[in-house]
Amino acid sequence: MSTEVPSLRGKVAIVGVGQSTYYKRGAAPDPEFVLVLKAVLAACADAGLDPKDIDGFASFSNDRSSPSRLAAALGCKELRFSNLQWGGGGAGAAAAVANAAAAIAGGLAKRVVVHRGLTQGRFGRFGQGMGYGQPIDQARVTGDPALLVPHGLISPAHQHAFKVQRFMHETGVRQDALKAIALTSYHHAQKNPNAIMYGRPLNDETYESSRWVVEPFHLYDACQENDGAAALIVCAAHEARTLQAKPAYLLGAAAGAQYRASAPSFNVPDLASASFKPIVKDLFQMARLNPDDIDAVQSYENFTGGVVMSLVEHGFFKAEEANEFLKFENLIVEGGRLPLNTSGGNLAECYMHGLSLIIEGVRQVRGESVNQVRDLNTCLVSAGPLSPPVSSIILGSESTL
Amino acid sequence: MSTEVPSLRGKVAIVGVGQSTYYKRGAAPDPEFVLVLKAVLAACADAGLDPKDIDGFASFSNDRSSPSRLAAALGCKELRFSNLQWGGGGAGAAAAVANAAAAIAGGLAKRVVVHRGLTQGRFGRFGQGMGYGQPIDQARVTGDPALLVPHGLISPAHQHAFKVQRFMHETGVRQDALKAIALTSYHHAQKNPNAIMYGRPLNDETYESSRWVVEPFHLYDACQENDGAAALIVCAAHEARTLQAKPAYLLGAAAGAQYRASAPSFNVPDLASASFKPIVKDLFQMARLNPDDIDAVQSYENFTGGVVMSLVEHGFFKAEEANEFLKFENLIVEGGRLPLNTSGGNLAECYMHGLSLIIEGVRQVRGESVNQVRDLNTCLVSAGPLSPPVSSIILGSESTL
Repeated sequence: MSTEVPSLRGKVAIVGVGQSTYYKRGAAPDPEFVLVLKAVLAACADAGLDPKDIDGFASFSNDRSSPSRLAAALGCKELRFSNLQWGGGGAGAAAAVANAAAAIAGGLAKRVVVHRGLTQGRFGRFGQGMGYGQPIDQARVTGDPALLVPHGLISPAHQHAFKVQRFMHETGVRQDALKAIALTSYHHAQKNPNAIMYGRPLNDETYESSRWVVEPFHLYDACQENDGAAALIVCAAHEARTLQAKPAYLLGAAAGAQYRASAPSFNVPDLASASFKPIVKDLFQMARLNPDDIDAVQSYENFTGGVVMSLVEHGFFKAEEANEFLKFENLIVEGGRLPLNTSGGNLAECYMHGLSLIIEGVRQVRGESVNQVRDLNTCLVSAGPLSPPVSSIILGSESTL
Repeated sequence: MSTEVPSLRGKVAIVGVGQSTYYKRGAAPDPEFVLVLKAVLAACADAGLDPKDIDGFASFSNDRSSPSRLAAALGCKELRFSNLQWGGGGAGAAAAVANAAAAIAGGLAKRVVVHRGLTQGRFGRFGQGMGYGQPIDQARVTGDPALLVPHGLISPAHQHAFKVQRFMHETGVRQDALKAIALTSYHHAQKNPNAIMYGRPLNDETYESSRWVVEPFHLYDACQENDGAAALIVCAAHEARTLQAKPAYLLGAAAGAQYRASAPSFNVPDLASASFKPIVKDLFQMARLNPDDIDAVQSYENFTGGVVMSLVEHGFFKAEEANEFLKFENLIVEGGRLPLNTSGGNLAECYMHGLSLIIEGVRQVRGESVNQVRDLNTCLVSAGPLSPPVSSIILGSESTL
C-alpha cells in the first residue's frame, strides 16, 4: 500500500438483492424486524447463499434491526462485522455499501448484508419532522434541530426547500425541470408491479394542480413515506463469480461533505449545494470513469430539486443546461439520454431510504430491470442529497470496466 | 485480491492520541461536544496534524458528537468518511479503529479520528440501566430489554453477573482472581496523575469489605462512570512514518460474536462466554502472532469477571489455570508475566467506554506509559466483554512484526 493508491475498485460485488412487499406507511402487517428478515432471506435466495454463512451487517440512519438480533434470528454461524453509517437520513445508503466493501477488502468479513427497514406507520413519519401541528418535543430540540426548529424549519421539506430555492435563483433552473423528474419516476413505475404507484400514472395537469408542500415542492416532488425493508449482499469479487446471480461489481464509492456542510448551519459558504461536489472527484477517480461513461442513474429523491442539484454536481450537465437536459424524453428508459430512476424511485416505487435505488442499480447491471436500459454496463446510484454526509457508488457489469 | 487473503496488517497506524481531563460523572465543566473537540485537538497536536486535514470520523455506542458537527467545528476541508460501530456498549472501541483502518486501506479516507465522549452526569448513568429505583420507562422496554427487564435484569451488572457466575461455576475460578484484577488496576493508577483514582490506592481489606453490586461483583469489580472524552488518529502506515510521533501500527483487528450471541437471549449454547472465542482466531491470524507474542494487555473491564473470561478466550491461559495466573504479582508492570491495564483501566484511570484503553496501548507501544513495560513490541487491547459484538486489536511497534 505504500505506493499504490488504495482503492476498492473491482474488489467486491453485490451478489444478491431482496425486498419485502412495499406498503403505504402504516399498512405493513409485519413488525419491522420481520420485514427485514424477509428482505435478507430474499437476498440470500437470490444469491444462492445460506443465511448461516452471512458474517456481517451494514446499515445506516439509526436502523433499528440490530445485527446481533439479525444474526441470532438467521442462525449465522458467526457475526464478524457490523457498522452503521452515521447520520439520521438516507444519505448513507451508498456509504453503507462502501463500508461493507471496505470491511471485506480489509479481511474483516466475507459476506455482508446491507439492510434497511422502515415502518413509518409505527415509528413516526420522516415528513412530519418534529411532529407538525403537534407541540414541539423540547427534549428533541437539541443539537442540530435547535438551530432550525425555532425558525420554523421543522421538516425535511422546510429545510431542503431553502437550498433548492437558492439553487434555482442562482442558476435559473425552472419548475419544469423538477416536474420532468416526477413524471419520469411515475412513468417508470407503471411497468413495475412492486411499485406503490403501479397503476397510478401522473400527468402534467395533476402535477401542476397538486398542492405545494413547501415551494418549490409540489406534492409530487416529495418522496413517499413507506413501510417495508430492503437488503443486498456484498462479497469479494472472486467469490461473486462462483455464485448464481450475475455480479454487480463495485467500481467506485465515495461519501462525504464539503467544508462546513453541517446540516443545521445555514451559514455555509455554499448553501446551494446538494453536498456532492467534493465526493464526485473521489468517486470517478476510484472508478477510473467519467460521467460520460455512466449508462443510467438512480438518484435519491427526497425532493426532485435535490435530484437536479445531484445530477449537476455529478457532472452529467451544467446547471445552465439543466432546463434543456431535464425533459421527460431525455430521462425515460425508452431512448433517453440519461435514464433516471428506472424503478420509479423514491417518488413512485418505494421509499426505503435509498436502498431500493441501489437494488434497481443491481437489476440494471444484471439486465433484469422492468425498465431495462439496453447495453448497460454502468449504473451510478447516489444517496441523500441536501443531507450531508451524502454518498454515491458506481456499479458495473465487469470488475475491470 | 483474488488469491491473497485480505488483511489490514501493517497498513495503518495510530499516530496521535488525546484526551480531555477525566471527571467523576457530573463534574465536567464543559458540554460533551466541547470535551470531544478538546480530545481531538489534543490528538492532532500529538500527531502534528492540522485538524483541517482530518477527513474522517469513526465512533461507537451511539456517540452523540456527529461527524458533520465535528468537521464544521474543526474546519475540516472535507468530510469523507463517518461511521459508527453498531451497538450501545463499549464493545465497539477496538472495532471503531478497525472500521477507520478499513476505510483508509480502501481509499475512502486518509486521516480518521476515532472518538468517544461521555457525560454520564447529563445523559444518564450506564450503571443505572433503566433507572434503578425509578418507574420503568415502558417505551424503552422494547426489543432486547423486553426480554431482560421483566426478569429483573435491568442494569449491565445484573445481566453480566449471570454469565460470570456461570463461568465461575463451570471452571472453578475464585473471587481472588477478580480481586487481583482490581488491585492491579488501582496499583497502576497510582502512577498515573490523569487517573481518577490517582492517590486513592486499594488494598485487600477495602476490596473485600466493599458492598456487593451484584454477586460476584464487589464495588471495586465494577468500572467507574465518568465524564470526559478520548480521541485518536489513524492514517496510512506510509504517512505515519513521516509524522512526529512514533506510530503504533495496527497488526490485527477483529470484531464479532459467536453463534446466537444476541445479548438479550440468555438461551444460548455458550452462556459462559465473553464472546471473544470466534474472533480471536481472526485476530491472531491477521497479526500472524500468537498469545505468547503479546507483551501487555489492556482488557476492557465493565466488570473484572469479564476480564478473566476475555484473557482465557484470547488464549493467555486456560480457565483451569486462571486462579494460578491471575495474581497481583503476575499482572503488574513490575515483572509481571502479563502486565494488565497499565494505566489503571476502566476501574481506576477512567471509563471512556474503552477508548482510554486503546490510548494506553499506544503509549505502551511508543514507550511512553507511566507504567512502561520494558522492551515492549506488542500490546493487545480488547473491548466490551459480555456485550457482543465485541472487538480486539493488536498494536505493534513495527508494521512487520
